[in-house]
Amino acid sequence: MERVETAEALRQRITRWRQAGQRIALVPTMGNLHAGHLALVDRARGLAQRVVVSIFVNPTQFGPGEDFEVYPRTPEADCAALAERGADLVFLPPVAVMYPAGAPGAVRVEVSGPLTEGLCGASRPGHFSGVATVVTKLFNLVQPDVAIFGQKDYQQLAILRTMVRELAMPIRIVGVETQREADGLALSSRNQYLDPPQRALAPTIHAILSDTAEKLIAGERDYPALEARAGMRLTDAGFAVEYVRIVRADDLKAPEGGEKRLVVAVAAKVGSTRLIDNIEVNISE
Amino acid sequence: MERVETAEALRQRITRWRQAGQRIALVPTMGNLHAGHLALVDRARGLAQRVVVSIFVNPTQFGPGEDFEVYPRTPEADCAALAERGADLVFLPPVAVMYPAGAPGAVRVEVSGPLTEGLCGASRPGHFSGVATVVTKLFNLVQPDVAIFGQKDYQQLAILRTMVRELAMPIRIVGVETQREADGLALSSRNQYLDPPQRALAPTIHAILSDTAEKLIAGERDYPALEARAGMRLTDAGFAVEYVRIVRADDLKAPEGGEKRLVVAVAAKVGSTRLIDNIEVNISE
Repeated sequence: MERVETAEALRQRITRWRQAGQRIALVPTMGNLHAGHLALVDRARGLAQRVVVSIFVNPTQFGPGEDFEVYPRTPEADCAALAERGADLVFLPPVAVMYPAGAPGAVRVEVSGPLTEGLCGASRPGHFSGVATVVTKLFNLVQPDVAIFGQKDYQQLAILRTMVRELAMPIRIVGVETQREADGLALSSRNQYLDPPQRALAPTIHAILSDTAEKLIAGERDYPALEARAGMRLTDAGFAVEYVRIVRADDLKAPEGGEKRLVVAVAAKVGSTRLIDNIEVNISE
Repeated sequence: MERVETAEALRQRITRWRQAGQRIALVPTMGNLHAGHLALVDRARGLAQRVVVSIFVNPTQFGPGEDFEVYPRTPEADCAALAERGADLVFLPPVAVMYPAGAPGAVRVEVSGPLTEGLCGASRPGHFSGVATVVTKLFNLVQPDVAIFGQKDYQQLAILRTMVRELAMPIRIVGVETQREADGLALSSRNQYLDPPQRALAPTIHAILSDTAEKLIAGERDYPALEARAGMRLTDAGFAVEYVRIVRADDLKAPEGGEKRLVVAVAAKVGSTRLIDNIEVNISE
C-alpha cells in the first residue's frame, strides 16, 4: 500500500491506473479508523480495481466549540489497518494541500434548501458546506469512479448524492449500512470520548430507534407523538436530546402520508459527547 | 461536427475520445458567437485534439432586471460558424440538463473575498457564483484537460482560475486576449444592442483605457487621480460610468506600489447597454 501526501504524488498514481483502464474507488475518512470504516473499504474493493482511502480531519466542517483540536488522530494505526484490508493507496494531505489559500479559502460548495436545514444542519451551520467543499476537492484530486460513505451520516450521504447529481459529477455514490457494536451502539470515533457509565448508556439510542421503527412498521403514523415519546425516553435515560425526527428517506422532509421509506434520526449528547444515529424503515402496506 | 443536448450523449463521445487518449479542450459560451469566441476556438484547437464548445445562456448569472430574456440566441448561425472553424462537438443543453432540480437548485459554488467584491462583483451580486456553478457543471460534464476563456471578462477569468486552484480541479485554464473591432471596441454580444450613435460612442471606452495605460507606462502612479480623470472623461462623453479601477492583475486588489502587472478595468452604460472592457499594463521600471 502506498502512502502519499501531495496532490502531485497522488495524480501520478491515479493517472497510471486510469491509463491502465482500472476503476478507482474512494473512501473519504477523517481517520481514527474502526470497523465501520473498514466495511467501507471492503465495499470499495468489490466496486473497483483500485481503492484509495483519504484521511483528513477537515477543519471547515467543525464549528466553533466543536472537537476539531481533540479529534483523535491515529495515522499509523490507520495505515496498518488499511494495508491489511487491501487498500491500494492512502492519501494523507496536510491542510495546505486541501486549502492552498488557507482554510476556509475563497471557494466553497454551498448546499442549501430543506436537505440541509433540518436535523444536524440546524445546530451545525456551515458543517455540510464544509463537507461538500472538502469532498469536492477530494473528488477532483482522486477522480474516482465511485465513492463510498457510511449511512450513519445519513444527512451527509443525502446531501452528497444531491451535490453529485446537481453538479453533474461523474461519480457514483454508494452508501454502506451502519456498523454496530454487539449492544447496538453505532461505531464512531467519538465513542472513545465516553467514560464507562456513558458507554453503558449509549446503546439506548439504538434501542429507542429500533423501538420507534417497530411502531412505524406496526402502523403507527402519529409522527410528532412518536418523536416526542422517543425524545422523552432519551431525556429520561440521561441524554441531552438535540433532535429525534422521522423524515422521508429520499429528501429528509417531513412525511406527508403514504411514504414507503422513512428514516428515524437522532442526535443527542451523553455528557459532552454528541452522538448521532438513524434507522431506515421500509413500510409495506 | 456533432451537436448534442443531453449529458448522456455528451458522456458517450467524451468517453470514446478519452479512451483513445485524446486531449479535450472546452470553450464555454453563451452563444451568439462573434470573432472573439472563434478566437477561443482557434486557441482550443492548438491545445487539444478535440474541441468542445458549449452554448448555454445561464439563468443564474443574470440578476433581476438584467437581459436574460432578451440575450441574443442564434444557435443555427453559431453551429455553422463552429463547424467551419473546426470544433468537434457543440453541447447545447436545455436548462433541465444543467439544473436538474430547477434553477438555481440547491447546490452552488460560491466564491467570496476580494476577488469577487470589487469591479463587477459590487453591482452584480450572485453573478460570479452563478458563473462558477455553471462552469463547474460544464467541467464535470465535459471533463476537459483545458478550458479557454476570454480576457475581456477579466474578473471572471481570475475567479475561475482561483476556483480551479482551490477546488483542485484537474483542468488548465487559458485566457485569450480580447478581440476588437478596427476602432478598438471590444467584441461583445451586447454590442448589437447599440443604436448607431451609441455604437459610434462605444470605442471611447477603449481609447480612454489605452490613454490611462500609457500614463501608467509613462510613470504616473496617482491611481485615484487616474481613475477619476478617466471616469470624468467617460461621463463627459455620455457614458453612465459604473467603475473605472486600476487593480493588480493577479488578485484584483488596489495596488500598493511596485506592482509589475496592473489592469485598468471599466464598466459603463451607453443608454441601457452595459459594456465592460479592460487593459493589462506591464510596467518595467
